[in-house]
Amino acid sequence: MEKIFKNVEEINPLVHCITNYVTVNDVANILLAIKASPIMADDKNEVEEIVSISKALVINIGTLNERTLESMILAGKKANELNIPVVLDPVGAGASKFRTEDTNKILKEVKLAVISGNISEIKSIYEGTSDTKGVDVNKEDIIKEDNLEKNIKMAKVLSKKLNTVISISGEIDIISNSEKSYLVRNGHEIMPFITGTGCMLSALTGAFIGANKDEILQASLCATLVMGISGERAYEKMIENKAGTSTFRNYLIDEVYNMTYEKIRENSKVESK
Amino acid sequence: MEKIFKNVEEINPLVHCITNYVTVNDVANILLAIKASPIMADDKNEVEEIVSISKALVINIGTLNERTLESMILAGKKANELNIPVVLDPVGAGASKFRTEDTNKILKEVKLAVISGNISEIKSIYEGTSDTKGVDVNKEDIIKEDNLEKNIKMAKVLSKKLNTVISISGEIDIISNSEKSYLVRNGHEIMPFITGTGCMLSALTGAFIGANKDEILQASLCATLVMGISGERAYEKMIENKAGTSTFRNYLIDEVYNMTYEKIRENSKVESK
Amino acid sequence: MEKIFKNVEEINPLVHCITNYVTVNDVANILLAIKASPIMADDKNEVEEIVSISKALVINIGTLNERTLESMILAGKKANELNIPVVLDPVGAGASKFRTEDTNKILKEVKLAVISGNISEIKSIYEGTSDTKGVDVNKEDIIKEDNLEKNIKMAKVLSKKLNTVISISGEIDIISNSEKSYLVRNGHEIMPFITGTGCMLSALTGAFIGANKDEILQASLCATLVMGISGERAYEKMIENKAGTSTFRNYLIDEVYNMTYEKIRENSKVESK
Repeated sequence: MEKIFKNVEEINPLVHCITNYVTVNDVANILLAIKASPIMADDKNEVEEIVSISKALVINIGTLNERTLESMILAGKKANELNIPVVLDPVGAGASKFRTEDTNKILKEVKLAVISGNISEIKSIYEGTSDTKGVDVNKEDIIKEDNLEKNIKMAKVLSKKLNTVISISGEIDIISNSEKSYLVRNGHEIMPFITGTGCMLSALTGAFIGANKDEILQASLCATLVMGISGERAYEKMIENKAGTSTFRNYLIDEVYNMTYEKIRENSKVESK
Repeated sequence: MEKIFKNVEEINPLVHCITNYVTVNDVANILLAIKASPIMADDKNEVEEIVSISKALVINIGTLNERTLESMILAGKKANELNIPVVLDPVGAGASKFRTEDTNKILKEVKLAVISGNISEIKSIYEGTSDTKGVDVNKEDIIKEDNLEKNIKMAKVLSKKLNTVISISGEIDIISNSEKSYLVRNGHEIMPFITGTGCMLSALTGAFIGANKDEILQASLCATLVMGISGERAYEKMIENKAGTSTFRNYLIDEVYNMTYEKIRENSKVESK
Repeated sequence: MEKIFKNVEEINPLVHCITNYVTVNDVANILLAIKASPIMADDKNEVEEIVSISKALVINIGTLNERTLESMILAGKKANELNIPVVLDPVGAGASKFRTEDTNKILKEVKLAVISGNISEIKSIYEGTSDTKGVDVNKEDIIKEDNLEKNIKMAKVLSKKLNTVISISGEIDIISNSEKSYLVRNGHEIMPFITGTGCMLSALTGAFIGANKDEILQASLCATLVMGISGERAYEKMIENKAGTSTFRNYLIDEVYNMTYEKIRENSKVESK
C-alpha cells in the first residue's frame, strides 16, 4: 500500500475528467491536492487526443447531456485502445431513464477498470432498474452490518459480470473484484452534507489507478482510505473550530493535501472478505 | 414560522435545479446545509422525469443558453402539471434582449410560485424593458427607505399580474404577494461581494416552498431570513478572524448548516405591510 | 501604479468572461474581491450585447467547445469594434489540435490587448506546435534564471508579431510588450497546487485593463502583482494555521479583497528589462 500511495506523488498522473459542472472545481482541486494533474476536456474534437496523453480517464455522468455522452464514449474507447484505465462514476444512475440507458451504453461500449458509486447507483446497474430517488442514497439501501453480506455478494457478482472493480461508498465502503472484497469503516456521516464527496472519490480513484495500473483493486482501496481518513480528520477540525459544512469541505481537501502514508497506516479500518 | 423552518429538515425535499455553472456548487452546498437534497439535471431527455420525483424546481437563467432554455420550459410545464412549485431566478434579466425575451417566454409558459431576484431584475420584468447594467443591481435602483413604498407597490402589482410571490433581495428585502408584503432588514452589505448570494437564496426558497407548498409567502420569507441572518453572523465571524470574502462565503454556508429556529426568532427584523 | 490600482475600485468595471466551467466560480469571486463586476454569458444570442455594456472581455479556452468558440469570436469582434480591450487565456493551448487551431482562429479574428498564459501555452503559440502535456507547465519549460533571457526575447518577439501584451505567469512572471519587459518575482510555489490561479490572473488582468485601457502594460503588471503578493500572504497564513490548499485558495481571494496599494508598494519585486 505504501508504494501505491507514493506512486501518485512520484508519477504525478495526468487524469482526464469528463465530469459534471456541479463539483468539477472540487474534483480538480482534490486531484492537485493528492499531487496528480487534472485536465477537464469534453469536446468530441479533442477528447481522444487529451485522453492519449493521460494516465487515467474518469467519466462522471452527474450532469450528462447528449453532447458530453458522445465525448465520454469516444474518450473511453480510445483509452481502451491505449490500455489507459477508465473509472465510471454513475451519478444518479436509476434516477431517470436517460441516466440508466446511458450508463448501459457506456458499460456496453467502454471497458471499465472501476465503477465508483453509491449503493443506490450500483444497485441500479446490478438490477437494471430505475428507482433511485435522486443523486443521494435511498434510505432503504444504506449499507449496514445487517445487509453487508448481501451487498458484498452483489459487488462480487457485478464485478465478475462486468469484469471491473466495484467501489461502493457509504457508511461501510465496499471495494471488490469478483473474488476479494475490502470493507472500509473510515469516513464520517457528515460527508454527504457537502456535494461532491462521491465525485472527489472517483477522481482520486482515477489518480491512484493511473499511477498503479497493475494494482487496480489495491489502488481503489487506497483512494477510499485517503478520502475516508481525510473526512474523519476534517470533521474533528470542523468541530474544534465550531464551523460548518463549507469549512468542512475545505478541511477535507486540506487533509488530502497533507495526507501521508503514516496517517493511512495508523488510521485505516480495513477488513478483507 | 417554526413549523415552516423545521419542515425542511423533516421532509428533506429534493430540489431540482436548472441553474448556471458559475454558482452551481454553492447552490448545491447550501441546499445540503439546510438539509434539502439538490439534483442538477438539465438535459431535455431527463428533466421531466427528474422534476417528477422532486419537491420543487428552481430555474436560474444566469448562464442561459438555447439548450437549457428548452429544458427549463419542459421541466416547468411538467412541474405545473404535477403541482410542484417552481421558483424563477431571472439573473441578469434586462441585461440583454435574449435574457429579457427568454424570461418572458418562461413567464408565459410556466406558472411560477415565486420569482426571486434583485430589484433591477424585478423592475425589468415589471417594465418589460432592457436596461439592466449586468447581473448586479443598478445603483439608481437600490432599495432604500425613500423609495420603499414605490417598490412595495411594484411588488404587489407584479404579484397580482403574474399570480406569483415576488421576492426581492437587497438592503431591504421585499417578499410580497398581491396583498401583503414583508420587509426584511437582515443581511449585510458585504454579501454582494461574493458571487451567488442571489442564486443561493432562490435555491433556499425552493427548499422552503418544496417543504411547505401551501405556505409559499411564509416559506419565501423564511428563506430570506435564513440567508440574511446567516450573512450577518458570517460577517461578524469574518471580521473576528480578519478574513475576507472567500472565507465569508464559507462562513455563510456554515451558518446555514448551523441555523436553528431560535436564531431566526431572536434575530429576524421583519415588518409587514 | 497607484492610480492604476485604485481605478478598479473607482470605476468598478464590468468584466465579461467567456470562460471554463472548472474555475468560473473563483474567477467571479476574485473579480468581486478586487471590486470589479463579473458577468458570465456565453450564448451567441447575447454575447455581443453583453460585451457592449462591459469594460473588458476575458476569453478563456479551458473547457472550450464548438458552441462557446463561436461566442468567443462574436464577442471578441464586437469588443474590437467598440474598442473594448480583450484578454485571451489560452488554457492548454498545445495540448490538442483543437485547442491549438482554435487559439489560432481567435488570434486571427480578434485583436487582443493581452495574452495571459503559462510558459508552455505561450511557447505553443510562439512555435505553432502542439506538445503541451496538459494544462500545467511542462517541466522543461519552467522559467528560471538560466532561460530568462531567452523567454524575455520570445515574449518581445511574440508581442511584436501579434501586437499585444504578453503576460506569462510562472516562478518568474514576464509581462512584456515589444520593447519593454517586466519581471515579477512575487508569488509562491504552492500556487499551482490549486486550480484556477492562471484563470484568476487573466480575469484580474481583464479588470485592470478594463479600468485602465490606455495603460495595458502597466495594468497587466498590476494584476500580476496583486496575484503574486496575495499568494505570498495567503501562503504565510496557511502555514500559520497548519492548513492546506483549499484553505489557501480562500486566503488568496481574501487577500485580494484586502489588497491595498501600500501592500503592493512594499512587497512588489519588479525588475524591468
